[in-house]
Amino acid sequence: MAWDTAKTKQSLLDAAVQEFAEYGPQGARVDRIAKLAGVNKERIYQYFGNKEQLFGHVIDQELAKVMAAVSPDPEQCDDLGEYAGRLYDWHTENPRFLRLLRWEGLLPGEDSTVMEAERTAHYAEKIATLRRAQQAGTVTDAVAPQHLLYAVYALAAWWFAVPRVIAMMMADLPDDGPAAHRAALVQLVRRLG
Amino acid sequence: MAWDTAKTKQSLLDAAVQEFAEYGPQGARVDRIAKLAGVNKERIYQYFGNKEQLFGHVIDQELAKVMAAVSPDPEQCDDLGEYAGRLYDWHTENPRFLRLLRWEGLLPGEDSTVMEAERTAHYAEKIATLRRAQQAGTVTDAVAPQHLLYAVYALAAWWFAVPRVIAMMMADLPDDGPAAHRAALVQLVRRLG
Repeated sequence: MAWDTAKTKQSLLDAAVQEFAEYGPQGARVDRIAKLAGVNKERIYQYFGNKEQLFGHVIDQELAKVMAAVSPDPEQCDDLGEYAGRLYDWHTENPRFLRLLRWEGLLPGEDSTVMEAERTAHYAEKIATLRRAQQAGTVTDAVAPQHLLYAVYALAAWWFAVPRVIAMMMADLPDDGPAAHRAALVQLVRRLG
Repeated sequence: MAWDTAKTKQSLLDAAVQEFAEYGPQGARVDRIAKLAGVNKERIYQYFGNKEQLFGHVIDQELAKVMAAVSPDPEQCDDLGEYAGRLYDWHTENPRFLRLLRWEGLLPGEDSTVMEAERTAHYAEKIATLRRAQQAGTVTDAVAPQHLLYAVYALAAWWFAVPRVIAMMMADLPDDGPAAHRAALVQLVRRLG
């Protein structure tokens, strides 16, 4: 039974990633998620409480994926630019995570963040890795590790957040496109770190 | 009569900024915009065509405002960091513009961008200013001016795009908040430019 529960929960989470990335936490519909997962809608309330809590679980799951897939390993921290480049690649192949974050950022109010402790722990881990790299002298220590990580995330993400603006800004460049964006990102982050 | 038309158009645009920033182009309702402006709904279709076109006009109007208010003047281009800081201040006081851009970035598909020529011209002007600063030697020419402008915009904007993520990332900093974010932004952009 425990196995069935875990499987059902995972089916719901996977369906919810799709629905929330597409429509956002306000536009998403619980009955579509249940239908997509092939699970009774009541299970969502039983396992996750409500739609907002399900959204928090979805973000936490996707955050854990990107954190595991694209890690600033201590030995790779001497090239923060390439770390940013690998993040860029991951976002290209997995656009849903940044959509989820951007939807969350458009929510009104300053309500408590679901799964806050779990998500904070993921960021703390990356910050600790950067701090160790700073202590080892492979990354600049002129900037707090939190702000350095902010810069990497911002520079890797903004292409995806405002694609139409990027197209207009880059209109006159002879060589533009995803490969040029990635190269510029790596170069920019190397100048920082 | 021409004066009345201009005034009615402006009332509609101002009401539309509010509605679109709050609900996005898909959630916004033309009847709420008309009501807020105190204007008959038919005027919207008469002056702007449809809701999508009105959204384009709204973004173009707000883009023109930020471009005029926060300009990388040739004489200020020797401190690209402070330019980013002034952008940050502007976004703090005028959060609607970045909300409009982020809503636009979440639209499905790759439809044509309304007011594309006008918006592209705004960016081209800033890029030309940066290019002149590069030629004068006050800003690095190791990076294309387009990519330098991208970095300034990305680093100035991401705080606003994902405020909950920022709160979690900065949780352990002894000194955090808008002033600390602005200071970090200025420092990061100075390292780039």
